[in-house]
Amino acid sequence: MTTLHDLETPAVLIDLDRMERNIARMQADCDDAGVAFRPHIKTHKIPEIARMQIDAGAVGLACQKVSEAQVFAEAGFSDILIPYNILGASKTAKLADLALYTRMTVSADSETVIAGLSEAAGAQGIRLRVMVELATEIERAGADPEKTVTLAQRIDGDEHLTFAGLMVYPSNPTIRPAVQEVIARLNRHGIGVETVSGGGIGAAKHMREVPELTEIRVGTYVFNDLTTLQKGLCTLDDCAMRVAVTVVSRPTPERAILDSGSKTLTPERAGSDAQPSYGRVVEYPAARIYKLNEEHAYVDVSACDPAPQIGEVVHVIPVHTCVVTNMHDRLYGVRGEQVEVVWSVAARGKVT
Amino acid sequence: MTTLHDLETPAVLIDLDRMERNIARMQADCDDAGVAFRPHIKTHKIPEIARMQIDAGAVGLACQKVSEAQVFAEAGFSDILIPYNILGASKTAKLADLALYTRMTVSADSETVIAGLSEAAGAQGIRLRVMVELATEIERAGADPEKTVTLAQRIDGDEHLTFAGLMVYPSNPTIRPAVQEVIARLNRHGIGVETVSGGGIGAAKHMREVPELTEIRVGTYVFNDLTTLQKGLCTLDDCAMRVAVTVVSRPTPERAILDSGSKTLTPERAGSDAQPSYGRVVEYPAARIYKLNEEHAYVDVSACDPAPQIGEVVHVIPVHTCVVTNMHDRLYGVRGEQVEVVWSVAARGKVT
Repeated sequence: MTTLHDLETPAVLIDLDRMERNIARMQADCDDAGVAFRPHIKTHKIPEIARMQIDAGAVGLACQKVSEAQVFAEAGFSDILIPYNILGASKTAKLADLALYTRMTVSADSETVIAGLSEAAGAQGIRLRVMVELATEIERAGADPEKTVTLAQRIDGDEHLTFAGLMVYPSNPTIRPAVQEVIARLNRHGIGVETVSGGGIGAAKHMREVPELTEIRVGTYVFNDLTTLQKGLCTLDDCAMRVAVTVVSRPTPERAILDSGSKTLTPERAGSDAQPSYGRVVEYPAARIYKLNEEHAYVDVSACDPAPQIGEVVHVIPVHTCVVTNMHDRLYGVRGEQVEVVWSVAARGKVT
Repeated sequence: MTTLHDLETPAVLIDLDRMERNIARMQADCDDAGVAFRPHIKTHKIPEIARMQIDAGAVGLACQKVSEAQVFAEAGFSDILIPYNILGASKTAKLADLALYTRMTVSADSETVIAGLSEAAGAQGIRLRVMVELATEIERAGADPEKTVTLAQRIDGDEHLTFAGLMVYPSNPTIRPAVQEVIARLNRHGIGVETVSGGGIGAAKHMREVPELTEIRVGTYVFNDLTTLQKGLCTLDDCAMRVAVTVVSRPTPERAILDSGSKTLTPERAGSDAQPSYGRVVEYPAARIYKLNEEHAYVDVSACDPAPQIGEVVHVIPVHTCVVTNMHDRLYGVRGEQVEVVWSVAARGKVT
């Protein structure tokens, strides 16, 4: 059987005990709150892991791109939400194709997007389920309450579309007044809101504070990372993703170089501008990864006693697990020292 | 024939006229300076483009990982330098395998790395070509002059290794005194230095200031990007890589959202901390991409008159071309409106 010691570095390891525990706990939390759970596949991009999430009780999946939804629909998943504006005749046609055999839902925040979805659904002879994205405090996409009501009525009145509710990101408690306003106004127009789909990194923590939420979309919880750890959303023992890397140079007593740069860990950083950190070295908590080039991590080991030596393999908890997955063709599922499973990251790099 | 308008976005476009001109000009510059040119494949990761570089006069290729070198060796390239410490029995064995049919050279900055290379070469019954990496001002890997001399002697005395010269990164003029010192000391020990290999983003600009350089390794020049543009190393008209993206939301008069986030453009940024920029929008030079999530680019369009509309396709010159290539499975070679060639990014994601 393959063990950890057989793997070349860098290698992205997933501790199976931890991942299984993370999956079970999140589902139990949602069940307890009476909120449906729809895991976002962005974190793993692997159908086999999505299957574990569904088997645990999730109602369906969230994908961010049509090309990702294709991977998961072809793998047999039957309820997929794309919380994103899909534009362009080629993409909307693919979406309508998927809707022939999968329960597809998509979001929109403009008349232009809705018109394109309607045209594609009409050409395919189906009705497409469309939510309206309500703008939130992060000032990204989304419509204000007034426009959300107008767009929901527009969808509700379209013969090729079904109004499927509201989508928000993130679903922090600050969004509640706007959600309540939109629901009340739509109800006055005789339009029901079957689903309010929330999401984001703290969505599970706050779901009870927004009782209008009917489901949440969360991804990171399955592996966790330095960001969820630092936000207090998990413990070190919940961090299932660890990147095995090798110390390839010790040019000075203070500095070590790892064989994993931004091509492995990505340039996303934690820490302050003055004291950035690109990951936590599990075996050397006093070490700080302070800079990355594409194939080199620079580590300050001046506070380590002893310090890591050339050739030593150490493990890094990355800053952001989702973007690390997207850099790699394979993830290794491990239990103790054993590599139990090698997953192909089937939806890696699906940008369209 | 496929045209630009047939492609779904995001799509990474390479202007073939510009790329061909970049290849020809860099080779002419090196020829004129009497410096051998060894393009680094990190920028394109595509054997077909490497072939154009070799056909233009390059002496060989630089790859950063053994797994990258395997792709290019299997594609028929016969002279490959890996300017990196290769450690671990599995990787050094693969390196020795490649050296059976390809002229492989590798660098080292420690006794540990050299011992591993010697063992693998001995097991394969070959001699492996090894350069010593001399430390530079960027304080990454590399040995100081004293240690460099010691390691070169160690290699020179090893029955399985051949001392192949010095490797520096970057080869800015500040490195010259150290290079001269090492060459002089090695010559006194009767050891010749056949190659001094320089590299880095400004390496071509400064190559005449370090006459000891016998070759340079440069990658970015083939496509160029916002970084080389801002450093004055190219003009806007030399930027061959442009990412086609779609405006998917216009939530406010000041803000546009593009369908390309860090999964497409990468989180590398230009500009200041207060005014970051994640790429230049060719059609709207007054627009500023000020933030990225994985699938969303936030654009300030308040200075644009007119501003881009929902559904419009615009083109972004990325901050760093090499890392963008690594995110994508395909690059599209275009001439005018025509898509002439679709390249598979054969060495994408080769991290080991």
